[in-house]
Amino acid sequence: MEKKEQLYEGKAKKVFATDDPNLVIVDYKDDATAFNGLKKGSIAGKGVINNVMSNHMFQLLEKQGVPTHFVEQLSERETLVKKVSIVPLEVIIRNISAGSFAKRFGVEEGIVFDEPTIEFSYKNDDLGDPLMNAYHAVALKAATREEIETIKSMAFKVNEVMKQYFDSLNVILVDFKLEFGKTADGKIVLADEISPDTCRLWDKTTKEKLDKDRFRRDLGGVEEAYQEIMKRVMGK
Amino acid sequence: MEKKEQLYEGKAKKVFATDDPNLVIVDYKDDATAFNGLKKGSIAGKGVINNVMSNHMFQLLEKQGVPTHFVEQLSERETLVKKVSIVPLEVIIRNISAGSFAKRFGVEEGIVFDEPTIEFSYKNDDLGDPLMNAYHAVALKAATREEIETIKSMAFKVNEVMKQYFDSLNVILVDFKLEFGKTADGKIVLADEISPDTCRLWDKTTKEKLDKDRFRRDLGGVEEAYQEIMKRVMGK
Ligand SMILES: Nc1ncnc2c1ncn2[C@@H]1O[C@H](COP(=O)(O)OP(=O)(O)O)[C@@H](O)[C@H]1O
Ligand SMILES: Nc1ncnc2c1ncn2[C@@H]1O[C@H](COP(=O)(O)OP(=O)(O)O)[C@@H](O)[C@H]1O
Ligand SMILES: [Mg+2]
Ligand SMILES: [Mg+2]
Repeated sequence: MEKKEQLYEGKAKKVFATDDPNLVIVDYKDDATAFNGLKKGSIAGKGVINNVMSNHMFQLLEKQGVPTHFVEQLSERETLVKKVSIVPLEVIIRNISAGSFAKRFGVEEGIVFDEPTIEFSYKNDDLGDPLMNAYHAVALKAATREEIETIKSMAFKVNEVMKQYFDSLNVILVDFKLEFGKTADGKIVLADEISPDTCRLWDKTTKEKLDKDRFRRDLGGVEEAYQEIMKRVMGK
Repeated sequence: MEKKEQLYEGKAKKVFATDDPNLVIVDYKDDATAFNGLKKGSIAGKGVINNVMSNHMFQLLEKQGVPTHFVEQLSERETLVKKVSIVPLEVIIRNISAGSFAKRFGVEEGIVFDEPTIEFSYKNDDLGDPLMNAYHAVALKAATREEIETIKSMAFKVNEVMKQYFDSLNVILVDFKLEFGKTADGKIVLADEISPDTCRLWDKTTKEKLDKDRFRRDLGGVEEAYQEIMKRVMGK
């Protein structure tokens, strides 16, 4: 598989064309941003960890019947994936209150919900990824009603699989962000990444944060947290 | 029906107790506020217009099978209503893009949606009435899943009735805000008010705004717009 021209560069990854028009290569960077790009930095080794962990999670999810963009890991930082057109919605599942939810609704972090919540934010950096509901998404033609139903049931399924998996690693899955895309033949698949950049992960015993909140909130031990998650996920 | 002590005063109305613990009197003021209370003013005659118009709308909706809090108009500004515990959600239906929707999602005003949208904002002045979805509302116990389903279908029904009614007055119903409450016996009814304070109403021919946006945006002719709507609604 030949790596050809760069198609685009996001905040955490670069995407390259290949010989095959239906496949692209994602290349994970160590760059870290927060608060819609206002805070910038770098987390040494993050690109490798997020690549390896994402691929591990995608393979686990495929086994449980969730279609993903994953094809094959090419190197420490590079993975071959199905090229998709990303549905412009960030899909957030929450099991426990934290972050923007706690702030927006004036509640403390750590409230365990009876049922997980799902929400969409409109993937648009200029607008600050505003919260949007399913009716808004349909009105603005970000997705059809059927696509949203598919995405919702896939996202809840991902949550069930991941919650159980992290629990087995003594980690609480607090919340996470997913992106979905449409392949050339119009099928919705899970895309983008699943990593400590996109999940809130708390140690079950100590409640220590093992995710990007250490970077966002200047808590220190950022690299160590990513390495700890990697160790638990990969068993090494 | 004796008017007893004031129970609370909101931005647009005062609420008084009566001899009957299940009934209260709402008393409409001319006070006008916008942007979560940041802009303050007064619109001469608004209290009378909003009272009379709300009661007219509630009676129309009752005839179409929508239960409301309306009992009996007592004076120009005062109405006897069922006392409810207000569900802490502002329920907004949109037929056409405008206001906070246009701003939030970076689109122009005036886009006619294929289907109306519904959204909830958490009724909390300190938090700025943040947008919330049905999952959030259930997680925060603002309402049960069943209550939300009831409220949604009532709100869409209200939209159908009102859209057709305003159309017959040569007025476009762009969007509006509703509040629902629970009566002593746990029944959900439409409460609060339906007025140019809570609806966006555009003249069908000229597209002139005949609502509170004239106050919000300093467009002038505020009193005249309220009077024009009153004239069309009451036929005088
Ligand atoms: N399978 C895929 N095909 C095409 N684009 C993808 C795929 N998976 C993820 N992307 C997109 O790659 C871009 C780069 O990722 P990232 O650096 O995380 O971007 P962002 O700055 O938007 O977070 C994003 O726009 C993401 O949606
Ligand atoms: N039938 C009712 N029973 C009890 N409270 C009501 C009823 N209808 C409306 N209310 C409440 O009366 C209060 C005063 O109204 P308003 O001045 O419009 O308040 P706000 O400042 O919240 O807009 C509001 O909290 C409203 O929800
Ligand atoms: Mg990203
Ligand atoms: Mg009010």
